Amino acid sequence: MRYYKASHLHRFTSELFRKMGCPDEDAETIAKIFVAAEMRDIPSHGMVRIKDYYNLWKGGRINVRPEIRVVHESPSTAVIDADMAVGMVAASAAMLKAIGKADKSGTGWVAVRNSNHFGIAGYYAMMALGYDMVGLAFTNANPLVAPTFSVTPMLGTNPVAVAVPADRQPPLVADFATTPIARGKLAVAEKRGERVPFGYVQDSSGKPSDDPSVLKRGGAMLTLGGDRIHGSHKGYCLSAIVDIFSSLFSGAGFGPFVPPSVAYLPLREDKRGEGTGHLFGAMRIDAFRPAGEFKNEMDLWIETFRAAEPSEGCEKVLIPGDPEREAEERSLKEGVSLIPAVEDDLRAVAKELGVSLDSPD
Amino acid sequence: MRYYKASHLHRFTSELFRKMGCPDEDAETIAKIFVAAEMRDIPSHGMVRIKDYYNLWKGGRINVRPEIRVVHESPSTAVIDADMAVGMVAASAAMLKAIGKADKSGTGWVAVRNSNHFGIAGYYAMMALGYDMVGLAFTNANPLVAPTFSVTPMLGTNPVAVAVPADRQPPLVADFATTPIARGKLAVAEKRGERVPFGYVQDSSGKPSDDPSVLKRGGAMLTLGGDRIHGSHKGYCLSAIVDIFSSLFSGAGFGPFVPPSVAYLPLREDKRGEGTGHLFGAMRIDAFRPAGEFKNEMDLWIETFRAAEPSEGCEKVLIPGDPEREAEERSLKEGVSLIPAVEDDLRAVAKELGVSLDSPD
Repeated sequence: MRYYKASHLHRFTSELFRKMGCPDEDAETIAKIFVAAEMRDIPSHGMVRIKDYYNLWKGGRINVRPEIRVVHESPSTAVIDADMAVGMVAASAAMLKAIGKADKSGTGWVAVRNSNHFGIAGYYAMMALGYDMVGLAFTNANPLVAPTFSVTPMLGTNPVAVAVPADRQPPLVADFATTPIARGKLAVAEKRGERVPFGYVQDSSGKPSDDPSVLKRGGAMLTLGGDRIHGSHKGYCLSAIVDIFSSLFSGAGFGPFVPPSVAYLPLREDKRGEGTGHLFGAMRIDAFRPAGEFKNEMDLWIETFRAAEPSEGCEKVLIPGDPEREAEERSLKEGVSLIPAVEDDLRAVAKELGVSLDSPD
Repeated sequence: MRYYKASHLHRFTSELFRKMGCPDEDAETIAKIFVAAEMRDIPSHGMVRIKDYYNLWKGGRINVRPEIRVVHESPSTAVIDADMAVGMVAASAAMLKAIGKADKSGTGWVAVRNSNHFGIAGYYAMMALGYDMVGLAFTNANPLVAPTFSVTPMLGTNPVAVAVPADRQPPLVADFATTPIARGKLAVAEKRGERVPFGYVQDSSGKPSDDPSVLKRGGAMLTLGGDRIHGSHKGYCLSAIVDIFSSLFSGAGFGPFVPPSVAYLPLREDKRGEGTGHLFGAMRIDAFRPAGEFKNEMDLWIETFRAAEPSEGCEKVLIPGDPEREAEERSLKEGVSLIPAVEDDLRAVAKELGVSLDSPD
């Protein structure tokens, strides 16, 4: 496993997307968000995906010269048609629009259609922090997850991200899929020949399974909660809300109609809605109370929860966002590691585009 | 078990609250929401709670003649001080305010402090439906739930409710606690001398427990997901967000500082923030796209999910809100049943206030 400086991966990634035809500014945005995923130790949304983006672009399913348009708005809302842009480009523009609305009207809510996979949801929620706003991001994703009582994959891993600013303390950043695990963990277990805990997946008849490869044989992932007795119907509610928020406000594809974020899966013929959808929110704190007061209270919230007594054998209680922030600090010092399989994929893409992963830093 | 007509329980309940000193209109609101909980088969938030409200009122912890004030606002936001009102009264006023803001600015977000237990969250979310808006409701609640890796109860069962209008189809109404189960289910299991599944509670050292009475001996409820391996940290994120949304925008008490919703638990001496907090949201659909278009697409969403193939042994796939709506229809025909223990409590309260539960209908 080799370590790379973040700045090196940033230059490499932005160069790849420039070579695909992205304007400089968009290539910078995309690179920043890919590298942020790696630095925050969410590699499932990092460089491993670049090959998928590249193949979607080659297949004409990503538009590197999009005309991103606001198609409707009110004082606190807007709808954006992303013209099949790379998800990061559409999402960054939409979140900035939400922040602008919040600046004038207290809150801003921007729905996006015709977009693509956007990487880590937390990135967009965090864009609000510098403006003393709470940030929210939702996206739907291609269907892998069965609703409670069903065998049919109808929902994506549909994440929720919320970022809340504090003062002395680092911000609280919650960024989580509405499933017990990310799909990537199944792939890892499968490669290692391991079983997974019950509660992650079910087989094609809806029975609990511990086989990480069961999705290939008609199985499905489960919603947060796992089974009915442990509240999977609540995870289903949450995932349904994220899907509806992400698609219906903008007219994007919902549930089973969300387009695959990999090129080897074909688009459905019975298309409904326009592409992948997102929703972004920005809530200006001083539209509720003075930001200083709120942020002091948020410090106290964080300090109170951090001081909660740990369970036997646990080191400490974490605040949402702690692990990712600690990973980011570590990555700044140690660099970002890529596994050989990802390096190989990146080299293959880089070769086709005339870029080198290994050029001197 | 005796069955009562909903109208009978409504008259009885409103009379009780009038006798406590509530203005007619408030007593009507409170009764409507208590009876709605019974009709929707959420008895944990229904008539069983009237005794608690009565005791809080006797203890001076509920104000039946509140002066509910808007203390801050922007085009899309407001903060309300509920002056220790009955939660239903504060929450109904706040949700109406959110709807008014959404009418003008596209969305409305109203935070409430100094409130009390408000019954079923779904009721307020559903208030938005008639205005072609999506409704949201959040509240915090007194601490029973431990964050992942901790033994300390820091969070309430902190529910989320979202209501989404459709056209031909009934609306989607998700209303769920951010724990695998409601606390009431532990009490029922304890009375029956039964164990509960692992994943609901932990003991005082943080070990998994199947003992429904473990909360009395330093145990705690778990967040949705149950344990770390099944995603309890995501349930913790969700519960934390609900707590922060409910308290920090308005300055209500957060986490461990949320006042108990029963009079037999004392108020903390190290008070922080003002009472129980809520947040309400209303999102006007045509601030995003024509309401008719959205509602047609929502019909299709519901029909698509309802048509998903059921798992072996399951009858059908449910849409969030189906069970409660079916219960409501059943209650209209059959009436609402109260268990003897609840009837006894109600008779005791009624006697003190000079009202009769059994007066002819």
